[in-house]
Amino acid sequence: MTSVAPSEYKNSPVRATVTTSKQSAMVEVVLRVLLFIGSLTAVVVMVTSKQKELVPFPPFGMVPNTVRFTDTPAFVYFVAALSTAGLYSIITTLLSISVLSKPGYSKILALYIVAMDVVMLAIVATASGTAGGVAYIGLRGNSHTRWNKICNIYDTFCQHAAGAILVSLFAAIVLILLILHSVFTMYRKIPN
Amino acid sequence: MTSVAPSEYKNSPVRATVTTSKQSAMVEVVLRVLLFIGSLTAVVVMVTSKQKELVPFPPFGMVPNTVRFTDTPAFVYFVAALSTAGLYSIITTLLSISVLSKPGYSKILALYIVAMDVVMLAIVATASGTAGGVAYIGLRGNSHTRWNKICNIYDTFCQHAAGAILVSLFAAIVLILLILHSVFTMYRKIPN
Repeated sequence: MTSVAPSEYKNSPVRATVTTSKQSAMVEVVLRVLLFIGSLTAVVVMVTSKQKELVPFPPFGMVPNTVRFTDTPAFVYFVAALSTAGLYSIITTLLSISVLSKPGYSKILALYIVAMDVVMLAIVATASGTAGGVAYIGLRGNSHTRWNKICNIYDTFCQHAAGAILVSLFAAIVLILLILHSVFTMYRKIPN
Repeated sequence: MTSVAPSEYKNSPVRATVTTSKQSAMVEVVLRVLLFIGSLTAVVVMVTSKQKELVPFPPFGMVPNTVRFTDTPAFVYFVAALSTAGLYSIITTLLSISVLSKPGYSKILALYIVAMDVVMLAIVATASGTAGGVAYIGLRGNSHTRWNKICNIYDTFCQHAAGAILVSLFAAIVLILLILHSVFTMYRKIPN
């Protein structure tokens, strides 16, 4: 880095670059913290979706039945994927904070992180889709395949599932913003 | 661009840059054509999944029943998403070919295209997930919610759906490769 006298530093391009780089790292930290909050919320809401109800079971009358997220493979995949995203967000938040405390652009680190973000987006998006597709059958049923809706009985369970899926869509959007932010940071560093 | 005499041009850095840029554009065209083939195949295979079977319908005995992809909202979303990806791949293939015929790196175009690729990846990944989640119920059923499997009856329908979902996963992987390729092209242009 060019050495600049304190009086010149205030308005110098060097200072401007350092400030922009710090702001950029700050935006990244905020987005990664949001990703962590989103992933954690989605996992917690989905895991706490257990509900016990009396359901008709002819010819025995009403019997108690409990539904859990583990009954549906799609929801198990959802929890696994969002847990991975949560863990990933912790690691990358720490990496972003380390960049913030020691400004300086590491090209290769930025490349690795954006590549991992893209893979993570694909995982979170498929998880939202998988859980969403199954939850929609729970909500509406499918007369063609004779799959009855279950959300009229297991209302709390469905509310939890729907909430978790919405939050996972938020996490996917945060991942899109993170990738776009990284790409834009790269874009600004390309000379014309 | 710097003007270089023909004798100097052969081993000059200018020629190397133009060649690399052409190779890079060529890789992009190939990937976008693969994306088009993948999206088109997924849509065609899913749309042609219609199957007519005699199914038990007590107390009337066996009745003919036809399943189509339009019976399942998840598959309708799948076809819509993959059609969008197919259309998008045609437009961006033409853009990439125009870059190939007129070498020269457009920063802003590259930025827009990578941003659109990321959004398209999210759409294709959710579509694969949604269709996959529902197809899995068709294959295995879910005893907890009393949704019976249907793939033992509608075998051709399920084979088509499974094939289309696999091809859509291939399309998602091609999109990941496209994004990584664009990011890597940007990365190489950042001065150290």
